Amino acid sequence: MSTPFVKQYLMTAGPTPLPPAVSQVMAEPILYHRAPAFVEIYARCLERLRLPFETSTDVLCFAASGSGAMESAVANLLRPGAPALVASCGKFGERWKELADAYGAATVHHDAGWGHKVEPGDLDRLLFENPAVDVVFTTLSETSTGVVNDVRALTDVAHSHGSMIVVDAVSGLGAVPIPQDEWGVDVVVSGSQKALMCPPGLAFASVSEGALARAAKAPGGRFYFDWTKTAKGQRKDPPDSPFTPAVSIFMALDVALGLIEREGLDEVFARHALLGRATREATKALDLELFGPDDDAANVVTAIRLPEAIDGTKVPKIMRDRYGVTIAGGQNQLKGKIARIAHCGYFGAFDIVTTISALELTLRELGHELDLGAGVGAAQRVFLDAGVPASAPA
Amino acid sequence: MSTPFVKQYLMTAGPTPLPPAVSQVMAEPILYHRAPAFVEIYARCLERLRLPFETSTDVLCFAASGSGAMESAVANLLRPGAPALVASCGKFGERWKELADAYGAATVHHDAGWGHKVEPGDLDRLLFENPAVDVVFTTLSETSTGVVNDVRALTDVAHSHGSMIVVDAVSGLGAVPIPQDEWGVDVVVSGSQKALMCPPGLAFASVSEGALARAAKAPGGRFYFDWTKTAKGQRKDPPDSPFTPAVSIFMALDVALGLIEREGLDEVFARHALLGRATREATKALDLELFGPDDDAANVVTAIRLPEAIDGTKVPKIMRDRYGVTIAGGQNQLKGKIARIAHCGYFGAFDIVTTISALELTLRELGHELDLGAGVGAAQRVFLDAGVPASAPA
Repeated sequence: MSTPFVKQYLMTAGPTPLPPAVSQVMAEPILYHRAPAFVEIYARCLERLRLPFETSTDVLCFAASGSGAMESAVANLLRPGAPALVASCGKFGERWKELADAYGAATVHHDAGWGHKVEPGDLDRLLFENPAVDVVFTTLSETSTGVVNDVRALTDVAHSHGSMIVVDAVSGLGAVPIPQDEWGVDVVVSGSQKALMCPPGLAFASVSEGALARAAKAPGGRFYFDWTKTAKGQRKDPPDSPFTPAVSIFMALDVALGLIEREGLDEVFARHALLGRATREATKALDLELFGPDDDAANVVTAIRLPEAIDGTKVPKIMRDRYGVTIAGGQNQLKGKIARIAHCGYFGAFDIVTTISALELTLRELGHELDLGAGVGAAQRVFLDAGVPASAPA
Repeated sequence: MSTPFVKQYLMTAGPTPLPPAVSQVMAEPILYHRAPAFVEIYARCLERLRLPFETSTDVLCFAASGSGAMESAVANLLRPGAPALVASCGKFGERWKELADAYGAATVHHDAGWGHKVEPGDLDRLLFENPAVDVVFTTLSETSTGVVNDVRALTDVAHSHGSMIVVDAVSGLGAVPIPQDEWGVDVVVSGSQKALMCPPGLAFASVSEGALARAAKAPGGRFYFDWTKTAKGQRKDPPDSPFTPAVSIFMALDVALGLIEREGLDEVFARHALLGRATREATKALDLELFGPDDDAANVVTAIRLPEAIDGTKVPKIMRDRYGVTIAGGQNQLKGKIARIAHCGYFGAFDIVTTISALELTLRELGHELDLGAGVGAAQRVFLDAGVPASAPA
C-alpha cells in the first residue's frame, strides 16, 4: 500500500533539524584548523557566540556533547569534599548531581520534582541551611519535562547568599532568554545541537571572569575540559584551540549563528514563544493535559500527558513509523506517560501543524476519541492572532 | 595575474581530506540518536571499528578530539599518587606526561628525544628501575616528527614487567598496523580525523577486558570519559550512547569504514607504505635530509629537515598561500626547521606528486638550488616499481 506519510520530520529537542545552509556547509572540504581559512571561521564563531549568551565574556568551546560542558563546570569549580548545591527538576538536572558525586563533592541535592519548577524560595531556604555552599548548579530548560526555570530569580537568590550559579542551558539557549551579563549568571553551559541549529559535537561554557579566576586558583584533576587552558588559547590573536576543534561543526555553527543574527535574537525568542503557545493551545484543545505548569516561558519543549487508557509507549513509535514524525516520549519514570514535542531551533508554524496532526491521527488509531483537526485549528489560531507577515522571511 | 595554483590540497596529518562519499553524507538530514535510522548506523560503526583496531573488544566512542580519548585512559587508569611511566619522543607523547601530571600521578617520564624512537631496551631498564609502575603510556605514530614506534616490542617489554601499556594511535591507526589483539596492547586510543578519513570530533578508546576491569575497580573522578558507563551503553542491545553522540560524524564514519573494508586493511597499509616510501625517496633525491630515522615503518607523516640557509617558517606559508598546498611545519623547538607532509588517510600517488612539486617550487623561490622534477621523479619511480594496477580502484 502506498502511503503519503513517507516524508521525515524531526521534532526532538536535540539533535534538532538543520537549516539547508547549515547542512550544505557540512559537505564542504575539511579545513586544516591552523590555516587562515579555518582560523577566520573559528574567530568569527567565538565572536558570534556572544549573541545567544548575551555576554561580553569568552564562550569556551569544547569538542564534546553538552554533558562535556557540564562536566567542565564541575571539574573546574569543585574539589573532593567541596560543598555544592544541585537544584534539579528532571533528568538533566539530576546529571549535575551525578557529576558532582563523581568528582567527590559534598552535594546537597534539592529535587523540586519532575514537572515542577525550582522555586527561588526553596533555594533561599536551602542556602540558608547550608551556608558553606558557594556554588549552585541548576537548569534553564529541563528537556525531560519542558519546564523552564526562572534563572533570573535563582541567580539573585544564589548571589544573595554569596554563591555562584551554574546553569545548564543546553536546550534553552537561543530559544528562551538567558541574558548572562544582565542577570549576572556566573556560568552558562550549552551545546550545538539544540536551538543553535547545528549537529551535536560542540559544547560551550560561557564563564564569567570570577568563575574563571576561581578555576585558575585550583588547577589539576582535569585537562581536556580545563577552562584556563581553553581560555588562554581562545584569547590568543589569532585565537587557537588547545585540541583539534570539530572543524565541520564550527563551519556549521558559523552559518547557523549568521542565521540567528539575521533573524534577530528577539525575533528568534518571539518565534519560539509562538511555537510554544501554539503547541500548548493545541494540547488543551484536544482535551489533553500539559505535563508541568501551563507556562508562557516554556517555549523549548512541550510535554503532554497522554491519556491513561492508551498505551503511551506506542505514541512516539506510531508517529515515527507510520507518519514519519519523530518526537520523544518520556524518560525514566515518565516512560509511556508523556509525549515531548520540541520546538527549539529550526522550527516554524507548519512543523507544529504537522506534529499535532500526526499526534491526532496516532491517538485516534490507539482508540482515543478526539475531533480530528481540533488541535491543529487551535495552533493555527495562535499563529493567525500573532499576525501573518506580509511576506515570508528570506 | 591569473594563477593556475588555485586548487586546494590538504596534506596535513589531521584534519585529513575527506573522500567525496564521506563529505556528502555529512550534508544529509540529521537523525535523532535514539531512532532506529541512527541506531543502525551507530551499531554498524561499533562493529566496523573493530577492523582498524584489529580487535574483538569494544571500541569505546566519545564525542571529543583524540586528546579526549587520551584523557579517558589517564582518568580511568590512574589515581593521584599512582606510579606511571610515560615514554615519549615528541609533542604528542609529552601530552601523556601533561595528562598524568594533571591527574596527580607519580609520573616517570622518559624522553627519547624528538626524532628518535622509544627504544625497547630503554623501556626495559626504566621498568626495572621503577618496579612500582604498572602502566606505560606511549605513542604509535608521533605526528610531530613522523617517527613510528615499535609498539609490538614495547608491549612485550611492558608485559614482561607486569605492566599494562596504553598507546596513542591517533595518527597511526588505519595507516600502519597495530593489531591490538595479536600484540596484546591493553589500550589503543585514536581519533576520527586522521587515517579514518572523517572530520574531527570522535575519539576512540579500544580497551581490553583487563583494563576495563581495572577502571571499574576505581570509579569516580571522571564522568564524561568514564569507560564503565560508555561500555555499559555500547553493550546494550541495541547499543546506546550515554551522551548525545556526534551523529553526523558517525554517519561519516560509517561510510569511511565501509571504504576501508572495501579496499581491505592490508591494501590500505600497503598504500600508506608506498606513499611513505615515495615521499622519503623524493626527499633524498632533492638532497634533503629526513628528520628522524629513514624508516620503512614511518608511513604516516614524513618530516623533512629544511635547508639551514633558508627561512624555514616560510615554506608551509608559501606552499599554502601561493600553491594551495597545506602542509604543517615544525612545532615547538622544530619551528622553521622541518616540513611535515602527511599521507595518512584519503591520499594517493598524485597527492605526493603534487606536494613534492609544490615543495620544489617553494624551495627554489626561497633561493635553494635544486633540479625541478628530481623529487617528483623519484616518487614516480617508487610508484612505477610497485606496479601500476591494470585499472584504477572503483
